[in-house]
Amino acid sequence: MSSTKELTSADLTSILEYTVSLARTAGALILEGSAAIQSAGNGNDDVSEKKNSVDLVTEYDVRVEELVKKALQEKYPDFQFIGEESYSAGSRPPLTDAPTFCVDPIDGTTNFVHGFPFACISLGLIYRKRPVLGVIYNPFIDHLYKGLKGSGSYIIRNGGAPQKLPLYPPKPLPSLSQALLAVEWGSDRHQTTIESKGASFMRLAGNQAQGVQGGRMAHSLRSMGSAALNFAMVAQGGLDLYWEIGCWPWDVCAGIVIAQEAGGVITGSHGAFAATSSDASFGDVTEAVLTGRKYIVLRAIGDTKEEKGVDAQKRIIKEFYETVEDVEPN
Amino acid sequence: MSSTKELTSADLTSILEYTVSLARTAGALILEGSAAIQSAGNGNDDVSEKKNSVDLVTEYDVRVEELVKKALQEKYPDFQFIGEESYSAGSRPPLTDAPTFCVDPIDGTTNFVHGFPFACISLGLIYRKRPVLGVIYNPFIDHLYKGLKGSGSYIIRNGGAPQKLPLYPPKPLPSLSQALLAVEWGSDRHQTTIESKGASFMRLAGNQAQGVQGGRMAHSLRSMGSAALNFAMVAQGGLDLYWEIGCWPWDVCAGIVIAQEAGGVITGSHGAFAATSSDASFGDVTEAVLTGRKYIVLRAIGDTKEEKGVDAQKRIIKEFYETVEDVEPN
Repeated sequence: MSSTKELTSADLTSILEYTVSLARTAGALILEGSAAIQSAGNGNDDVSEKKNSVDLVTEYDVRVEELVKKALQEKYPDFQFIGEESYSAGSRPPLTDAPTFCVDPIDGTTNFVHGFPFACISLGLIYRKRPVLGVIYNPFIDHLYKGLKGSGSYIIRNGGAPQKLPLYPPKPLPSLSQALLAVEWGSDRHQTTIESKGASFMRLAGNQAQGVQGGRMAHSLRSMGSAALNFAMVAQGGLDLYWEIGCWPWDVCAGIVIAQEAGGVITGSHGAFAATSSDASFGDVTEAVLTGRKYIVLRAIGDTKEEKGVDAQKRIIKEFYETVEDVEPN
Repeated sequence: MSSTKELTSADLTSILEYTVSLARTAGALILEGSAAIQSAGNGNDDVSEKKNSVDLVTEYDVRVEELVKKALQEKYPDFQFIGEESYSAGSRPPLTDAPTFCVDPIDGTTNFVHGFPFACISLGLIYRKRPVLGVIYNPFIDHLYKGLKGSGSYIIRNGGAPQKLPLYPPKPLPSLSQALLAVEWGSDRHQTTIESKGASFMRLAGNQAQGVQGGRMAHSLRSMGSAALNFAMVAQGGLDLYWEIGCWPWDVCAGIVIAQEAGGVITGSHGAFAATSSDASFGDVTEAVLTGRKYIVLRAIGDTKEEKGVDAQKRIIKEFYETVEDVEPN
């Protein structure tokens, strides 16, 4: 199929099938890599140990990326591809209307390195500048998530039957005080970023009635260390909301589709949300949102007699953005 | 078997077998409860929804506790039992030399309520005032951990063969800057606690060279929301260290045995560590440590030419306690 012709629904279904299979193959290599890293350099020498591990991380990162890229290019030679490599030369090529794979071969690299079992491959497809397909696979616990624009999203656990997301009918969400939130410390450890994030997290957790100014007393905060798996967990319904500053389109592209198809909503920075919350473009993941490096994803919220789910989503995001500080990613 | 006679090695093996089986039975009830809570009250009425969910949480909490307590009391009528109930009357009965079960029927209650798949039953046994046996079972991903004093600890994933912990030979750990740490926001949301914890977390994550005073720039911080599963993950080797203030003996008793048997070390507060770090009592989980509500658990560290693993453990805990603030649990 050529990038100039339209992608039909049948094309997308076929691409989904192929990418699910590819994600499992990549997952096996991720597991192999993690085991090799964990097993490496357990001799009596710090220096060689560190060198071995670092070499192996690079080696498997490259191997998984090459495996995935090669398979996708052979099968879909006319498709574009964006990932860490495309951006690392310093240029950020704008999206075209062509089908474009947007892939993070290993999301949750720190977890992968430590053998903390929450790392995954995240495999998304952008078409006409919108994410349309997503596959996320965590081989450590054998959970695979897949979503296709207009066709729903699913989880497959331990090779079982696909289960539609969210796993349960969406409940109302009265306020952040009822919410389980995901936040991450991230890789930017400058004073400005850390103090700003820290202050935001403290307001989310703290109790205003017990002295924390602006405290929302959320049920709790979780940090699992994988953007893609956080999106997937929001889609599943196990988290209410995930907020992120500093990650990249390939970290979130697949998760966006999976969350949207589960009734979740994604928007960008404080400003992006404020600009769209009162019109029909709310929840439209435009190129600006996709590449904006600031994301908020909120689960489906059930309608109540008093409030439609989409209005509740706007209300919760507003409450959230009134609580946390914006900060520029480095 | 009577509490007055000695527990033999065969007794303990038999108790482990029984408690593993009991944990699986309880796990099935936990799954049923979580599904019931997630499915409850999805009608169009906020109020009845909330009421239903809260009622169900209480109902399943009580049902799991009763199931476990009844089974243990029938099988081991002379054993003592401590759990939330024993303490909630306000009294804190001191430990005796008798065998004493120390059980949290659902650890990670917030996760359980939200369907975030990291909740477990934590089932420990104290004998002669020391934790000697531990079983932790997360039914959401079917991971079971078990440990017996002197006999090692194991993980059983998806009903597979038991794998000895840690999963890989322990590596050296040069400093906190190489470490993946678990911390939790906890349930105490007073200003004092939240600001103190927040400041500690910021120093763990922040980069001193980029302006964060005392910053250690750990690889990252994780928060999964279950003390027992954090202990188990340290035992497994997926986390390097877990620090906690405010949880209870039943949250950690099983995890202590599982971590110790995997070569991990547990100690208490800043003061408890300082008092023991230079003598043979380092790592002895006395009654004071077990009931002290302040815990630090660190994975096994491999010997190097320059340093024995146990000395590295002391060095890392010292570095950690120089970084974080102590705070009194409420």
